[in-house]
Amino acid sequence: MAMEVFTVNTERTGAIDVTGKVRECVRNLAKGRSGVAFVFTFHTTTAITVNEAESGLMDDMIRAGISLVPKMDYRHNRIDNNAEAHIISSLIGNSVALPVEDGELKLGTWQSVLLLEFDGPRTRKVGVKFLAEAD
Amino acid sequence: MAMEVFTVNTERTGAIDVTGKVRECVRNLAKGRSGVAFVFTFHTTTAITVNEAESGLMDDMIRAGISLVPKMDYRHNRIDNNAEAHIISSLIGNSVALPVEDGELKLGTWQSVLLLEFDGPRTRKVGVKFLAEAD
Amino acid sequence: MAMEVFTVNTERTGAIDVTGKVRECVRNLAKGRSGVAFVFTFHTTTAITVNEAESGLMDDMIRAGISLVPKMDYRHNRIDNNAEAHIISSLIGNSVALPVEDGELKLGTWQSVLLLEFDGPRTRKVGVKFLAEAD
Repeated sequence: MAMEVFTVNTERTGAIDVTGKVRECVRNLAKGRSGVAFVFTFHTTTAITVNEAESGLMDDMIRAGISLVPKMDYRHNRIDNNAEAHIISSLIGNSVALPVEDGELKLGTWQSVLLLEFDGPRTRKVGVKFLAEAD
Repeated sequence: MAMEVFTVNTERTGAIDVTGKVRECVRNLAKGRSGVAFVFTFHTTTAITVNEAESGLMDDMIRAGISLVPKMDYRHNRIDNNAEAHIISSLIGNSVALPVEDGELKLGTWQSVLLLEFDGPRTRKVGVKFLAEAD
Repeated sequence: MAMEVFTVNTERTGAIDVTGKVRECVRNLAKGRSGVAFVFTFHTTTAITVNEAESGLMDDMIRAGISLVPKMDYRHNRIDNNAEAHIISSLIGNSVALPVEDGELKLGTWQSVLLLEFDGPRTRKVGVKFLAEAD
């Protein structure tokens, strides 16, 4: 099975910089080749994004995300009180695609891979796949 | 041509669970291999997301999506009265990437593939591609 | 190195239609094959989306994007006054996946690839990768 999976223990909400873990998974999978890596969460109240891993901004992203979901009488909250977490997770997205050159993630200067938790604390699973380019 | 395409008849707005159709397309394309599947809409007022296919939440996502687009004098509405539908579609995104193991979609417990309609009713086309991992 | 990269000179904010450039990169990379193309920005205050390249709508998307980010005391603004640009960029996303058939981008009638600038003017880099389907 060519998927690397790692776990992240989260707090109630928060952004976690997983770039180092993703980089290690990509090295194991790519073995020096070029192509595209994919990072997935397997959850519906977390998101994955590429942005700057500055601690203030990471906090800003979580607060803004929670704040921008409209205050409404959500039907899902009669079942499970986390509709807002589902909604912001779908707005941000649950996977990212990342270029890989010669086995290494190729990110811009300020780019990091962030896991955003909106409904923790939980143990979250993140999967990484790599697809190689043809020669 | 290795793209599977299916159609979905939509209402004015709404979220449609297309996981079963996507799963079938992936089986046809992957033929037991592992890799990554991609699901695309070919439209600019629909979105594709991965989230929970709970009927209350699916309704919540549509209502929240429509509500969070700011009320403004949109220039596009002088041409075609659907700027808000375009904007929320770009916020959510028009494709998703999904892991595939041994020919089967590998989704989390609560994950489904949802097509979100913001400007129906219409007949919408969804495309599915599969890229296999190298051995 | 099988990544095509082009640059775009942006204004303060704005949406730029890069479909022609992406199409040319895909032709160079795909050489008649089918598969999936990926378009990446290497920045954290720009986004890439697929939507209609109508000039009014392109302006609407930028204005709506800026307006929907909540007005808050962002911690990142004590360092670098662009938290809002980071946040809207993560909401829209920094890459897209596009189907390719016989070496050509396969987009819907109204679909174009748009680079959205939220913190210019700058010279921005956009990367394009192509992964071919197995036969």
